[in-house]
Amino acid sequence: MLKPLGDHVVVEPKEREEKTQSGIVLPETAKEKPQEGVVVAVGSGRIEKGERIPLEVKVGDRVIFSKYAGTEVKYEGKEYIILRESDILAVIQ
Amino acid sequence: MLKPLGDHVVVEPKEREEKTQSGIVLPETAKEKPQEGVVVAVGSGRIEKGERIPLEVKVGDRVIFSKYAGTEVKYEGKEYIILRESDILAVIQ
Amino acid sequence: MLKPLGDHVVVEPKEREEKTQSGIVLPETAKEKPQEGVVVAVGSGRIEKGERIPLEVKVGDRVIFSKYAGTEVKYEGKEYIILRESDILAVIQ
Amino acid sequence: MLKPLGDHVVVEPKEREEKTQSGIVLPETAKEKPQEGVVVAVGSGRIEKGERIPLEVKVGDRVIFSKYAGTEVKYEGKEYIILRESDILAVIQ
Amino acid sequence: MLKPLGDHVVVEPKEREEKTQSGIVLPETAKEKPQEGVVVAVGSGRIEKGERIPLEVKVGDRVIFSKYAGTEVKYEGKEYIILRESDILAVIQ
Amino acid sequence: MLKPLGDHVVVEPKEREEKTQSGIVLPETAKEKPQEGVVVAVGSGRIEKGERIPLEVKVGDRVIFSKYAGTEVKYEGKEYIILRESDILAVIQ
Amino acid sequence: MLKPLGDHVVVEPKEREEKTQSGIVLPETAKEKPQEGVVVAVGSGRIEKGERIPLEVKVGDRVIFSKYAGTEVKYEGKEYIILRESDILAVIQ
Repeated sequence: MLKPLGDHVVVEPKEREEKTQSGIVLPETAKEKPQEGVVVAVGSGRIEKGERIPLEVKVGDRVIFSKYAGTEVKYEGKEYIILRESDILAVIQ
Repeated sequence: MLKPLGDHVVVEPKEREEKTQSGIVLPETAKEKPQEGVVVAVGSGRIEKGERIPLEVKVGDRVIFSKYAGTEVKYEGKEYIILRESDILAVIQ
Repeated sequence: MLKPLGDHVVVEPKEREEKTQSGIVLPETAKEKPQEGVVVAVGSGRIEKGERIPLEVKVGDRVIFSKYAGTEVKYEGKEYIILRESDILAVIQ
Repeated sequence: MLKPLGDHVVVEPKEREEKTQSGIVLPETAKEKPQEGVVVAVGSGRIEKGERIPLEVKVGDRVIFSKYAGTEVKYEGKEYIILRESDILAVIQ
Repeated sequence: MLKPLGDHVVVEPKEREEKTQSGIVLPETAKEKPQEGVVVAVGSGRIEKGERIPLEVKVGDRVIFSKYAGTEVKYEGKEYIILRESDILAVIQ
Repeated sequence: MLKPLGDHVVVEPKEREEKTQSGIVLPETAKEKPQEGVVVAVGSGRIEKGERIPLEVKVGDRVIFSKYAGTEVKYEGKEYIILRESDILAVIQ
Repeated sequence: MLKPLGDHVVVEPKEREEKTQSGIVLPETAKEKPQEGVVVAVGSGRIEKGERIPLEVKVGDRVIFSKYAGTEVKYEGKEYIILRESDILAVIQ
């Protein structure tokens, strides 16, 4: 299992199709492009002023994040992206 | 539904016409160009010194924001922009 | 009406003549160039350490600000500039 | 009158001669070049942790500041420079 | 022995094969590439607000970190990487 | 007299010879090059959290500082360098 | 004697051989390259929140630091490097 540190999150990305199941499409403009995925592990939060701040997202959340954020890792045959919670834009509810 | 994280806001942008309904026009100068839209979802605020600071804008607000701020997403057929509240310049009242 | 957020200010700029009414002229040197205008709306201030810090400028103030600061908007036929209070250099009294 | 905001200061610059009255000359090296002037107005100070910190310089002080700092304004026929107190290097006593 | 300072960590890197034992592979995309290793020494933590914050990782942890982070040293014939704990993305459990 | 502001220091630089009296020489490598001088005036310190922090150096100290730091001024016929205390690397005792 | 200020440290560098006595070698990769030396003087620490934080390294420590950090000085015929403690990666014990 991958246990992210601090405010890192492990996300299993959706396949990048032109139109995803949930309807998020990657637009063709010059704007920052988003990507979609599911949270599979969260860190215990970063420490600020001596207190650990728990993350807002949780395992199972479908999230939208910047396509250019984070680090890709392949672990036991599957691809994941490790990113900071601050790189997550929104949760799809 | 898109639930933005932290101090992010989901905005439904006005169509970009040369002259919008409310009279905001995109000037042709070298200055930063604004864009107009309606807030459709707000985050629960960022945490500072252990306290969550609620956002100043609310769902339904017509807002002006920098044309180059934020991330475009298409969700259930509609286009949205996710941006930080600090990228919002003013509310049209 | 345009209601600026946080520490933003809406300013109605003076027409850019070579010599303005109040005697501010835009010099031809390499220095940062100022511009003059009148404050027409102020934000409620930014939050610092849980307290909202009210702005120093008020509606009606004639102010000098950097020519390159802020965002131009055209609203109900008039041109305005939205800038942060920290971009205002001085009040003309 | 020009009333500077925050920690801004209005300075009436000395004419730039090769050798000024007080003996400050602008050297020809690659180092940052200083300029001399007299403080004619000071802001009420910036706010830090809820308290306003008054400025160290006062009206009448002859000061040395970086030649590239600040914004030139012409007001009622005279040239001034508006700069932050942190751009002032020393007072000539 | 190498005793890292502050929040530094000494890591013995895995040999860089195309597919590592634990299944982490280095993908061929433009994303930041990760590397895997084992923690062999940890610093006593950085000081914040007068208190030393102990590290989250410990000796023996298998960790994933950015391939471009840290400093390579060769010590008594073995290669190590010294990096900050904040450059570690996740622990493999 | 030059009275530096805040954490500024006025230094009378040593003549730049290839080998100075105290034995400091400017090496020919790509590293940052130091310069030597004597402190002739110190500011009253910068304010942090409402308290003024006095400087560590005092008038008369022989100091080493980066060759590229600070601002050269010529005052009453002599050359000085005004720099921040943080640009001073060491005192020669 | 050289007395470093604040959190500066004076280090006498090891001769740069391809393989040093302690076995640290400078690798040929694109990574940041380390250098080894012995601490000969330490500053009294930087001040944070009104308290002086003493340094973690002490005179006599054999340390590894970035090859590109700090300032070279030649003092009484010997070469030293003055760097911040934060540029030191590890102590060799």
